[in-house]
Amino acid sequence: MSHRHLTETTWQETREAAPGAIALLPVGSQEQHAGHLPMGTDTLLVDAVVDRALTLLDEDADGAPSLVRLPTLPYGHSPHHLFAAALTLSAATLEAVLGEILDSLAACGHRRVLVVNGHGGNDEIMKLAVKRFALRAEVTVAACSYWTVTGGGEDGGRPDVTPGHAGWFETSLMLAAHPSLVRTPVPARAPVDPPPLFDRPPYPGLTVERHGEWERVGGSTDDASGADAAHGRRLLDDRALGLARAVRAFDTATRTGP
Amino acid sequence: MSHRHLTETTWQETREAAPGAIALLPVGSQEQHAGHLPMGTDTLLVDAVVDRALTLLDEDADGAPSLVRLPTLPYGHSPHHLFAAALTLSAATLEAVLGEILDSLAACGHRRVLVVNGHGGNDEIMKLAVKRFALRAEVTVAACSYWTVTGGGEDGGRPDVTPGHAGWFETSLMLAAHPSLVRTPVPARAPVDPPPLFDRPPYPGLTVERHGEWERVGGSTDDASGADAAHGRRLLDDRALGLARAVRAFDTATRTGP
Amino acid sequence: MSHRHLTETTWQETREAAPGAIALLPVGSQEQHAGHLPMGTDTLLVDAVVDRALTLLDEDADGAPSLVRLPTLPYGHSPHHLFAAALTLSAATLEAVLGEILDSLAACGHRRVLVVNGHGGNDEIMKLAVKRFALRAEVTVAACSYWTVTGGGEDGGRPDVTPGHAGWFETSLMLAAHPSLVRTPVPARAPVDPPPLFDRPPYPGLTVERHGEWERVGGSTDDASGADAAHGRRLLDDRALGLARAVRAFDTATRTGP
Amino acid sequence: MSHRHLTETTWQETREAAPGAIALLPVGSQEQHAGHLPMGTDTLLVDAVVDRALTLLDEDADGAPSLVRLPTLPYGHSPHHLFAAALTLSAATLEAVLGEILDSLAACGHRRVLVVNGHGGNDEIMKLAVKRFALRAEVTVAACSYWTVTGGGEDGGRPDVTPGHAGWFETSLMLAAHPSLVRTPVPARAPVDPPPLFDRPPYPGLTVERHGEWERVGGSTDDASGADAAHGRRLLDDRALGLARAVRAFDTATRTGP
Amino acid sequence: MSHRHLTETTWQETREAAPGAIALLPVGSQEQHAGHLPMGTDTLLVDAVVDRALTLLDEDADGAPSLVRLPTLPYGHSPHHLFAAALTLSAATLEAVLGEILDSLAACGHRRVLVVNGHGGNDEIMKLAVKRFALRAEVTVAACSYWTVTGGGEDGGRPDVTPGHAGWFETSLMLAAHPSLVRTPVPARAPVDPPPLFDRPPYPGLTVERHGEWERVGGSTDDASGADAAHGRRLLDDRALGLARAVRAFDTATRTGP
Amino acid sequence: MSHRHLTETTWQETREAAPGAIALLPVGSQEQHAGHLPMGTDTLLVDAVVDRALTLLDEDADGAPSLVRLPTLPYGHSPHHLFAAALTLSAATLEAVLGEILDSLAACGHRRVLVVNGHGGNDEIMKLAVKRFALRAEVTVAACSYWTVTGGGEDGGRPDVTPGHAGWFETSLMLAAHPSLVRTPVPARAPVDPPPLFDRPPYPGLTVERHGEWERVGGSTDDASGADAAHGRRLLDDRALGLARAVRAFDTATRTGP
Repeated sequence: MSHRHLTETTWQETREAAPGAIALLPVGSQEQHAGHLPMGTDTLLVDAVVDRALTLLDEDADGAPSLVRLPTLPYGHSPHHLFAAALTLSAATLEAVLGEILDSLAACGHRRVLVVNGHGGNDEIMKLAVKRFALRAEVTVAACSYWTVTGGGEDGGRPDVTPGHAGWFETSLMLAAHPSLVRTPVPARAPVDPPPLFDRPPYPGLTVERHGEWERVGGSTDDASGADAAHGRRLLDDRALGLARAVRAFDTATRTGP
Repeated sequence: MSHRHLTETTWQETREAAPGAIALLPVGSQEQHAGHLPMGTDTLLVDAVVDRALTLLDEDADGAPSLVRLPTLPYGHSPHHLFAAALTLSAATLEAVLGEILDSLAACGHRRVLVVNGHGGNDEIMKLAVKRFALRAEVTVAACSYWTVTGGGEDGGRPDVTPGHAGWFETSLMLAAHPSLVRTPVPARAPVDPPPLFDRPPYPGLTVERHGEWERVGGSTDDASGADAAHGRRLLDDRALGLARAVRAFDTATRTGP
Repeated sequence: MSHRHLTETTWQETREAAPGAIALLPVGSQEQHAGHLPMGTDTLLVDAVVDRALTLLDEDADGAPSLVRLPTLPYGHSPHHLFAAALTLSAATLEAVLGEILDSLAACGHRRVLVVNGHGGNDEIMKLAVKRFALRAEVTVAACSYWTVTGGGEDGGRPDVTPGHAGWFETSLMLAAHPSLVRTPVPARAPVDPPPLFDRPPYPGLTVERHGEWERVGGSTDDASGADAAHGRRLLDDRALGLARAVRAFDTATRTGP
Repeated sequence: MSHRHLTETTWQETREAAPGAIALLPVGSQEQHAGHLPMGTDTLLVDAVVDRALTLLDEDADGAPSLVRLPTLPYGHSPHHLFAAALTLSAATLEAVLGEILDSLAACGHRRVLVVNGHGGNDEIMKLAVKRFALRAEVTVAACSYWTVTGGGEDGGRPDVTPGHAGWFETSLMLAAHPSLVRTPVPARAPVDPPPLFDRPPYPGLTVERHGEWERVGGSTDDASGADAAHGRRLLDDRALGLARAVRAFDTATRTGP
Repeated sequence: MSHRHLTETTWQETREAAPGAIALLPVGSQEQHAGHLPMGTDTLLVDAVVDRALTLLDEDADGAPSLVRLPTLPYGHSPHHLFAAALTLSAATLEAVLGEILDSLAACGHRRVLVVNGHGGNDEIMKLAVKRFALRAEVTVAACSYWTVTGGGEDGGRPDVTPGHAGWFETSLMLAAHPSLVRTPVPARAPVDPPPLFDRPPYPGLTVERHGEWERVGGSTDDASGADAAHGRRLLDDRALGLARAVRAFDTATRTGP
Repeated sequence: MSHRHLTETTWQETREAAPGAIALLPVGSQEQHAGHLPMGTDTLLVDAVVDRALTLLDEDADGAPSLVRLPTLPYGHSPHHLFAAALTLSAATLEAVLGEILDSLAACGHRRVLVVNGHGGNDEIMKLAVKRFALRAEVTVAACSYWTVTGGGEDGGRPDVTPGHAGWFETSLMLAAHPSLVRTPVPARAPVDPPPLFDRPPYPGLTVERHGEWERVGGSTDDASGADAAHGRRLLDDRALGLARAVRAFDTATRTGP
């Protein structure tokens, strides 16, 4: 196995690995996921995808890129879910947390970092953080949300609800990764009319946010009752494969020296 | 003509118009645009698209939605262009500026706002600002960058370089909107190898930022020498049409009362 | 014509002009100006004075100092006008905006900057910003509000109401610069008794702020019904002349080399 | 088992449990722990103590207080360890993180919270955070570092080096909790002369910080070569017992209603 | 004697006095004052003027307004004096300190506050602080620097150097108030050519700040060798009389009820 | 006398003394101290202890360490006393004030600083400030609260109420140091049941903060009616002796050179 957990390495090992390794930071959230999924869904799923991707890389006959896995940040930016329940960092605080972890990595000698996100609400903050980092340090830094890197574009035939929130996609993944944490049977829910503006903007290319919209639509984007573990496994495998390939491509594009 | 400039209305007119009107805030930047385009390109182009869209709406036989145009914010977030020249606000400051203008609009009675952006570097900050605004005020707020709303998907046959930076797309638009400000002939430039990671990530779905990348690739994303005013006019008309339609769709989706 | 608009210059031109030129940044506001003047009055007037001053300098037989005009910042610090209507930046945010624009100018090679203000509420913030800038960068930086620089002390015989707010002075200027934007006839208003403490402190040398004072006095400092365009033109010409002379004096005092 | 992991509960369960339960937030760090202990030592140990304490409570014949365990925050305030290696949040950022998690808990209906800390450098920040929280919300909030709550005062006969840093105490605990992560044999180290001022101030009651002191003393406070798993187990059991008793005492002192 | 020191009153006395009394907050600085005056000159002088003014008011046959004197803030904003020696708060920090003291006064029931400043560098910050305070609390708040309130315009015949810095004016006052702290004989200094731009701007109405200017001119604005205690006493008496009158005028203008 | 007041020294004297001297910064508060002690009690007492300690050092036959006494900061962090009356700085602001004064001292050439605190609520903030200072500057910095440094452990036989708040300890000290400021006879108060959780946590090692606790217990920790001046004098002398010894020990431990 070629990847390490930073939490388990000594500081000398950390320093020695840093110049050549990619540091991988998963970021999750704690927030309402409708009545059938637990608060930590996003954290659990990003961990599931990252773990599988690291296993794929370790098993690869070509050998794995050198990787240091950081402790997953289990808290994200979820103020829009406070209407139900959430533990949320403000955007400014999450930006600071990410920025300071990235700065620390540079101080330890890391030159390449990959942030893998499990929660849509973290997306802009993560992107700002990596952009700013690359301006102030001589690093190359990548970021993705786990559902945006795919092995072959597998979407279970439901691109319209990928990733959504607490709907078919996430429920399928949870049925595959943590079936005991899904409250089943998942009740069907009728489509909300009109659909939420944040998910279905009135014109393509427009981002629209309406006050109270998450509460109006009951906290999820789509009907999860059709979710199943088999689709979940395929989706999970596909994202893990996508992430593994993305890691390798990032490594190839940014490796220096022989 | 049914839209107004807030700068030209009295405070009573502002208050009276606020509950029913959409406030429209354009945001630009001042930053290097290679050797042939001026620093204010993004501001000039977002203004050009907004002006044309407002004209289209005013001329519409169905009547225009009530609109209040705010003064364009001519400064944006451009730290990645400081290697050449830029006047840049930090992300935190631009977030504060947008947030405080949005709060002021709510204090004046506005319930619907549309932010139209002209600079890619403002994108995440704009989205964070509108999301936060909709959480703390009873409003519906929309945001777009002018190149993401299209009339019919017109891309001049060059989706690969839309919008890019200081390349074929922006140069064509400037040749249409402000030809005297384009230094011609625009010199050809050979493709940079490897292409910039921020524009061509090594794996789909990955955002990658490398220190010094903008300087390495000479400050633009693609060859602008083939740009021409005719394409520029069509692109400009298409985005204006897209924005006009987006405004109308936003109005329809969020209008309350009879 | 020897002055340029930064928004229209390329980055190389910006860089080349920077060491020798004075960068000129106008700052305005969007805020209630009683029932007869528009929200953008301060922005419109500072632009009017700056434009006339630049024309005077360009026409001068002695030649003009090298000047780069920046886009006017159309938003200022106006929380005291929110009782009616205003788009306001907090003091901290306006300080940050000015500080970051000034820092950007230094990063582009500028060594001399002049900030010209159109709104009384920006005054302390502008002064703090230029003081701090001169401590952290090797620059000389000047600041004024347009009504404090005069050609010959022209006050139209009304020094008691210069500049005031939405009163005789500003209304006269607007009648000269933008007559179509003044709602006429301007109604007479009786003096408020007692006069506002912020404008007429109970002892000379004292600054006094009372909660709700702007609302109590109806949003203006003095009767504007006697304003006329002829006085406005003379005042505008005088301030433009004053600003032109101030620019030249600043240039002379701070020019280095042959 | 009567305690729950918030990450595994739905939002309704979170809301329902909140008014009666104690929310328990462990906080750790990632920082150098000399040559023989891993970066995550403080996080691993606080988790070990918390897990054992929760087991003791669950097994108690008297029944356990209702508890909701939050995800451990794996990052703390460790700038003094950057000379070797650390991932550190600034004091302001850690204060914000703790404050926002606490605020979120109050928003979810929690009225009682216990923060359990594993890293000395977090101590003041944790205390400030709980003090501020109790001022702005109607809550009772407790905080401790795991080594300050004891079952019977067990110190393994070495109160002089409890807890220290990367010395006899922490090494003994790690040999008991995670023996595979201790690099053995742990080399002996001679006492540093003079001893570090932060650990041995020149006068009782004085806190003294000297620049470069952690580096001067090699990153640990005392010789860890005599550490052994047997002492570690007793210390771990004692702290777990202490924490269990502290939880019960806190519950008794703050429970309201029948 | 009708004024009190807040530091000597109990909290009930503080609460009882608050609604009717004027709270008076002196603000000073610690900064270089050339070779002959001590670092605390501004603090010592504002205290001297305030003490004399309070004595005048207490001795007045008409009775004194109710006053609560706060502890003098001995630290101000002096970054421009760090080239020699200063203990300085940043502008943001001094704004926060003043704002929070003012907020605390309002929380204690005060409705009228007067800030008296002894250091030019605090001026804009003090004005911003009182303006912001009057917007967020139902208070009337006044501010002055001690040299701006005069009894009869006494300037010792030297308006050109009033107040200056470490020159004739301050040295005369210190010879009157604290003669033992003036290092005498005060050496003469030749005028600096050109004079400092911050003190003698190239055009009236312009504020100009040049990097390194305070160091270039040796840390004072004018020759102090002609200072004498007799002038100092008259100036001190005049400012104390001015401040006493200003307090009474402020009291009269803002007193409510019978 | 070997110690100086910074407020009375010129900047050259400040600079010359700085490398060898210990800068001593006392910090107090303004806050309710029950019905019998004044708001400034903590400031008055820290000054009393510091003054006596400096006298002891000056009188010492061995000579005193070189000391520069800074003006006492009379405002601290007291939000928990606002329920009655307090002038309070937020934790962030007090941290900034301390940090900027410390930075200024380093800029003036100081290498050794001692902060002496008079208010429990400042404790964590002071410790954070000195820790951060020692990381960013090449200094050695010490901190204590005056009651933690003792000459011989004198506690008047009442360690259970040392220091408490507005109880036997502080009242005794005030009867010794400022008898005219104690409202006598001090009324007896019955013990509050249950005692305040912040003072008597339910388990040793736990810090507990309950909303409204200070108000519930009437603003003091224990009965002050038995306080007497004789004990106060002995306690005061003991703390002054303790501080003097701490200063000397700090000096010895950190003096460099011959």
